[in-house]
Amino acid sequence: MKTVIIGSGNLATHLSMALLRAGIPVCEVFSPTKAHAQELAEKQGARALDSLRDVSADADIVIISVKDDAIESVVAGLEHVNNDAIFIHTAGSVPLSVLSEKRKNAAVLYPLQTFSKTKELDFSIIPCFIEATNQRALGIVKEMAEKISNRVQIADSAVRRKIHLAAVFACNMANHCYYLAEKILEEEGLDFDIMLPIIKETAEKVETLSPRKAQTGPMVRNDITVMNAQKALLSDLLMIRLYELMAESIHKSCTNR
Amino acid sequence: MKTVIIGSGNLATHLSMALLRAGIPVCEVFSPTKAHAQELAEKQGARALDSLRDVSADADIVIISVKDDAIESVVAGLEHVNNDAIFIHTAGSVPLSVLSEKRKNAAVLYPLQTFSKTKELDFSIIPCFIEATNQRALGIVKEMAEKISNRVQIADSAVRRKIHLAAVFACNMANHCYYLAEKILEEEGLDFDIMLPIIKETAEKVETLSPRKAQTGPMVRNDITVMNAQKALLSDLLMIRLYELMAESIHKSCTNR
Repeated sequence: MKTVIIGSGNLATHLSMALLRAGIPVCEVFSPTKAHAQELAEKQGARALDSLRDVSADADIVIISVKDDAIESVVAGLEHVNNDAIFIHTAGSVPLSVLSEKRKNAAVLYPLQTFSKTKELDFSIIPCFIEATNQRALGIVKEMAEKISNRVQIADSAVRRKIHLAAVFACNMANHCYYLAEKILEEEGLDFDIMLPIIKETAEKVETLSPRKAQTGPMVRNDITVMNAQKALLSDLLMIRLYELMAESIHKSCTNR
Repeated sequence: MKTVIIGSGNLATHLSMALLRAGIPVCEVFSPTKAHAQELAEKQGARALDSLRDVSADADIVIISVKDDAIESVVAGLEHVNNDAIFIHTAGSVPLSVLSEKRKNAAVLYPLQTFSKTKELDFSIIPCFIEATNQRALGIVKEMAEKISNRVQIADSAVRRKIHLAAVFACNMANHCYYLAEKILEEEGLDFDIMLPIIKETAEKVETLSPRKAQTGPMVRNDITVMNAQKALLSDLLMIRLYELMAESIHKSCTNR
């Protein structure tokens, strides 16, 4: 199978390296920035491309791992690729139809994880959500996904975008809470490192306890005295509004636990 | 040294068990609920008390680990304890003065962690913040803290309450983001378990990368299309407001990174 990857970002890098380790090397890497294509292509022993027209017309699998709003134009730029090729995108919030409107064989492989280029990851534990326009495409994307992950599940576009939404809460918003903590500590000249044990423990707790039951602190207890004192320590209006909204939402979530 | 603990909640339990392992058993455990006092006292080989008047008048160290707003009344109920005893509280947001107004030897030992009774913890890595009214009390609380933790730091009441505020963001609010993710998944009949790898990775990332640099997702990119589509999936008004406020705050935090 001749496999091509379009994109060289965090996800494209981790995914293609996991595929390589699983015995599925990509033979072409595209990025509009040649140096980026080259960097990943070197690791793969693949050709680096900076023009979509140079993607082999006889490719069997084309993995599109680019920004959400760039997927459509990538598909348009790959019209020369043979009609039997399977086009796969990796985005949480993009429906399969963005591919299937143009391609007979379309599929999605969405790995639910946050990727940084500099940090190694065990791909085998990453939940991967797949779907496809037909049985052949589904079979191929399933086989591919199961070679790199032990947690492959079928999910249609509507379910997948809910999963992505949940991830925005559990990952992006949680990380932003870390950021705001860092900001508060910085003002006191304190190192963010002191937060690492409580961050780790908070994340580990929900492995065995539901987040509702794991909740602690002044907001669950609706401890108005502490909360007013804490709000008075904040000068940033956005942080005050966030504090108030979080207090309201936490209290509401915990009143019936 | 005759050590007494007032309280039998999560923190009181973990702290006293860490002290026991470090060779500092408590000899009396107080809780207004006798059964709670007994449960912890049994583990300690200590006496269980449900009346403050029964606390030994010749105690050397009295650790008060109760809800913030109960500390004052506990101190008032222990007037019979000798004047040389050192009174220590363990709260993040309560100033030392709540003790020192009534007691000559007052101190604080604040362990920065979220405690659940059912989950074992390595106390040695928990950052502990201490302060005291005088050198003798500081020496004793420092020695005690250093027997159970490798990360003991002096912090006055003003700094400590900032640390507690930061913890509310990094722990309570982050946990609430997990909860909201769980809620979204529940509506789709999906298991919260699928979020665990991304939650773990998000927490681990900030061990080596600042939260500002670790941030990913549609809010950093200010991807209006994805964000509007995601908001349209939410029906709970509080969640929509939280989503909007988080989007604003994340975008603001990342524009200059």
